[in-house]
Amino acid sequence: MNVISLTVWTLENNCFIVYTTLIVCFTAFTIFHQKRLEDRYSRSVERKEKIPRNFSGGRERDFPDDEGDDPDQLIPALPEDTPHIPYQPPRRCDEEVLKRSQEFYELMAQRRTVRAFSPEPIPDEVLENIIKTAGTSPSGAHTEPWTFVVVQDPEMKEAIRTIVEEEEDLNYSKRMSRQWVTDLKPFATKPVKPYLSDAPALLLVFRQTYSWRPDGKKKMHYYSEISVAIAAGILLAAIQYCGLVALTSTPLNCNARLRDLLSRPSNERLELLLPMGRPHEGATVPDLARKPLNEILVKI
Amino acid sequence: MNVISLTVWTLENNCFIVYTTLIVCFTAFTIFHQKRLEDRYSRSVERKEKIPRNFSGGRERDFPDDEGDDPDQLIPALPEDTPHIPYQPPRRCDEEVLKRSQEFYELMAQRRTVRAFSPEPIPDEVLENIIKTAGTSPSGAHTEPWTFVVVQDPEMKEAIRTIVEEEEDLNYSKRMSRQWVTDLKPFATKPVKPYLSDAPALLLVFRQTYSWRPDGKKKMHYYSEISVAIAAGILLAAIQYCGLVALTSTPLNCNARLRDLLSRPSNERLELLLPMGRPHEGATVPDLARKPLNEILVKI
Repeated sequence: MNVISLTVWTLENNCFIVYTTLIVCFTAFTIFHQKRLEDRYSRSVERKEKIPRNFSGGRERDFPDDEGDDPDQLIPALPEDTPHIPYQPPRRCDEEVLKRSQEFYELMAQRRTVRAFSPEPIPDEVLENIIKTAGTSPSGAHTEPWTFVVVQDPEMKEAIRTIVEEEEDLNYSKRMSRQWVTDLKPFATKPVKPYLSDAPALLLVFRQTYSWRPDGKKKMHYYSEISVAIAAGILLAAIQYCGLVALTSTPLNCNARLRDLLSRPSNERLELLLPMGRPHEGATVPDLARKPLNEILVKI
Repeated sequence: MNVISLTVWTLENNCFIVYTTLIVCFTAFTIFHQKRLEDRYSRSVERKEKIPRNFSGGRERDFPDDEGDDPDQLIPALPEDTPHIPYQPPRRCDEEVLKRSQEFYELMAQRRTVRAFSPEPIPDEVLENIIKTAGTSPSGAHTEPWTFVVVQDPEMKEAIRTIVEEEEDLNYSKRMSRQWVTDLKPFATKPVKPYLSDAPALLLVFRQTYSWRPDGKKKMHYYSEISVAIAAGILLAAIQYCGLVALTSTPLNCNARLRDLLSRPSNERLELLLPMGRPHEGATVPDLARKPLNEILVKI
């Protein structure tokens, strides 16, 4: 009986040891692997969902986390002791304010997006004044995150046209939703863009996603997207005010190729491409109405 | 020996069966669980990385995929047969264009963001003209994706102030990066915002991420973010032109609470909050310079 007991014990325990080892190894591997997967997933969810400490209106990836910085060592991008000075612009009475608000509305209401340009050149000083006006725009923490590239050189305009037409061909046929392509039909837009060679000037609005401070540190550009678009609005107002016209376009998927063509640095992104000049004598626009005031204004 | 063999066999096999069952169950559960985790992860990566067929400049989730639609059945949001009409605004000669571009620049260059307002009310008609002017802005496929809420009611202004101050307190202490808070020091901005009760009008700019067509289908608002910000630029130009001032602010994390307070629908998102009016007689601004032209303009 002793011999039998021993045999049974040995067999049982060998079996037990082998299986236990297997289970332990397998469990360890599984737990490790699952942990890795869960980490990857939760990191990816976090990136999307958390209210980032670095949120700044721009795309979060533009801004490195500052965890490594000593809070006592942080220096503002502009001098902390910037003096504050009185601001007293000339006071206009209610009647004058009303008259001017009406005048400006009537002028801006005549603005239309134009797709056929006269080739007449625009004086350099006019272009400069328009860009200077756009540069008066407010921006997040006064970062002024814009670069305006004005192209008048015919060969460069051709090169831009080639890139935009190639990408637009792909956009219309592959990248845009069918509903989107359908919604554009009333505007008679097409992948062929003769205005990119005809307009006397192409105005490319680049957004600086960040820049560098004199001390070599990265300068964060808070709310750079909305800042650049507000500047573009003031730019369009300037173009209209002085009697010229423009086409507001956002070339889809052209950023990398146009940035390379125009030798812009990697911290810049193309946001808008505005051909501008005088309208062609045969220019037409779709007969569209704007929404009435009661559809866009709510008073409380 | 037969008895011994049988005993050993039984014991061995019982052990084998128990362990095997355990391992099979455990493996099945593990594979199932890992598969689910991997699916979740890869779906989340996909959502971020693909170039969406529905990409439209807005956030992708705003736009449902149209895979189910029959391409032959798609109808544009505006009539496809919208006529195109001649566009011939009055022609201005180069001298006049130059003069006006200079005039507008000088006017806009005087604009500053103001944080102290005189409580003098603004005539209703002026507010209406300013909003009408903003409504002349171009927008993706002429969707006009904006709602301007103008608040003059003192109690509502107080309620807005309470929400913004509560959120700003959290923004400054928890949500913004330390570098960001440091970069704001020269502007003397703080979580306490008296201008939200002092300014005679608060202008809240909401972006409609989509809307509804008369046929009940969802109307896509292409490039709604950039469109609304461009409209805000034209709005700021109008405010400056008529002789008033504003504070351009982007209240962080206030969207849901202010949308509820003002009873705006769920397709709208608060983009900007602009207190406006006349500057307080003691108003000051930080003594900042704008970038010189050669830092913002590149001519080719």
